[in-house]
Amino acid sequence: MVITVVGLGVVGGSYVQALQGLGYDVYGVDLNEDTLKQAKADGCIIEGYTDAHEIVKKSDMTIICLYPSQVLEFIATHEFKPGSLVTDVVGIKSYFLEKALKLISDDVEYVSGHPMAGKESRGYAYASKDVFIDANYIIIEHEKNKKESIEFMCQFVSQLGFKTARIMSPYDHDEIISFTSQLSHVIAVSLIDSDTQKFDTKKYTGDSYRDLTRIANINEELWCELFLNNKKFLLQSINNFENQFDKLKDAIINDDSDTMIAMFKEAAKRREQLEQKDE
Amino acid sequence: MVITVVGLGVVGGSYVQALQGLGYDVYGVDLNEDTLKQAKADGCIIEGYTDAHEIVKKSDMTIICLYPSQVLEFIATHEFKPGSLVTDVVGIKSYFLEKALKLISDDVEYVSGHPMAGKESRGYAYASKDVFIDANYIIIEHEKNKKESIEFMCQFVSQLGFKTARIMSPYDHDEIISFTSQLSHVIAVSLIDSDTQKFDTKKYTGDSYRDLTRIANINEELWCELFLNNKKFLLQSINNFENQFDKLKDAIINDDSDTMIAMFKEAAKRREQLEQKDE
Repeated sequence: MVITVVGLGVVGGSYVQALQGLGYDVYGVDLNEDTLKQAKADGCIIEGYTDAHEIVKKSDMTIICLYPSQVLEFIATHEFKPGSLVTDVVGIKSYFLEKALKLISDDVEYVSGHPMAGKESRGYAYASKDVFIDANYIIIEHEKNKKESIEFMCQFVSQLGFKTARIMSPYDHDEIISFTSQLSHVIAVSLIDSDTQKFDTKKYTGDSYRDLTRIANINEELWCELFLNNKKFLLQSINNFENQFDKLKDAIINDDSDTMIAMFKEAAKRREQLEQKDE
Repeated sequence: MVITVVGLGVVGGSYVQALQGLGYDVYGVDLNEDTLKQAKADGCIIEGYTDAHEIVKKSDMTIICLYPSQVLEFIATHEFKPGSLVTDVVGIKSYFLEKALKLISDDVEYVSGHPMAGKESRGYAYASKDVFIDANYIIIEHEKNKKESIEFMCQFVSQLGFKTARIMSPYDHDEIISFTSQLSHVIAVSLIDSDTQKFDTKKYTGDSYRDLTRIANINEELWCELFLNNKKFLLQSINNFENQFDKLKDAIINDDSDTMIAMFKEAAKRREQLEQKDE
């Protein structure tokens, strides 16, 4: 089975590494020739191409690891092997999938996916198959999907190291992602940008500030695209957060330790549940 | 030199572990006899006591690892060896130190400290000297401190694994801590409490949400005390955060990608600076 990974950045690079030794014929596409050379030297790809047109015509599976708008452009300008499976790693789905399905040929099976694993650093040099181990993976099912394609995708991502894939609609995906991923990024950016810089902050940090701002080292073009194309759900998550934040702020202002302690206990309980292994 | 650590929870337990093998005679005080037995079995203390009165009279250094209000009560009810050094690990200083200095005998050298290392879990079982390695440590100097006591404290904490200690006033300490530590806790609690729980969240999280909520597993009594006794600075940090959060929210509402990208770039730059080694 021939698999082509398009875009060997931190995510695509992790894919080709995770695919190593699984018995597939893996090819890579990237605009950067040095990246292709490195991936070949690492034994992760058989060959690398800066132009994808010929290789995707021969590929049984194409994994497009580009930004949302670039994926749409790629689909619009490339012809895939009939009967082949095409997938993406895009972090927003309702807006994106509607456009993607209009562009993709009917003889291609498009299975949209979201690997919930990443790193704040960019580029192949930071790629690592380790980020996939026990990470969550979401498959976004749509009406044209064949049952066997979804089943194949579930098996495929579990081979890569992910936990059991969850299948959901684009709308449910975008709602939960606006909370678990996007809101966290809004907070991390706001927190670090709110530093008055009166002191040399790094001399006075513990793990808490470092943990909360890790993802503030943000890829600005990508996240701008992700936020603006999931506005409705993101603003809903932002409002929910603001309500709790205001409640805690008011409790501090009013010396209302009962409310504070109730909020802390609820938070501690929820955080412990998050660590529990799921079935 | 005889050192007594009072309170063998996660912080005090880490102290007795870090003190092992440094040549001091280390004793432990805790209300829990099993904890004392365990610390003795681990070879971290020579002997453990549930009552501190006799041992602190003989100790050249007493490290009190209790909550702020408990430290004040401990100082008020115990007599320390004349000329000995007494220190604490309390996370707020201006309110606290004013009271502590009124209670402590003039023939004792009180050097207030803040090890910026901790864990969200409680109790001796979670103690580990590893949390001190390369962590920040702040010494809060006051007018009665002798120069040699401050110098001793700097050397002492570097023996335990901390980076070079920073010396600052109680007010500067409380201002910077309200930002680097307390605000992060307010955010983490608000974030996890804002979960609508419509979905089974843990199935759809990546590292970002887990990182941002790690400290939401909060010790409710301790943090209630810390927040309420540092209200002025904490509310200032909360307001600074809200300003940036509102700015980003407005940019999302108005499709203002220029503002978003400017905020993201500033955040990424600051986060990279945070990772740079300081001199």
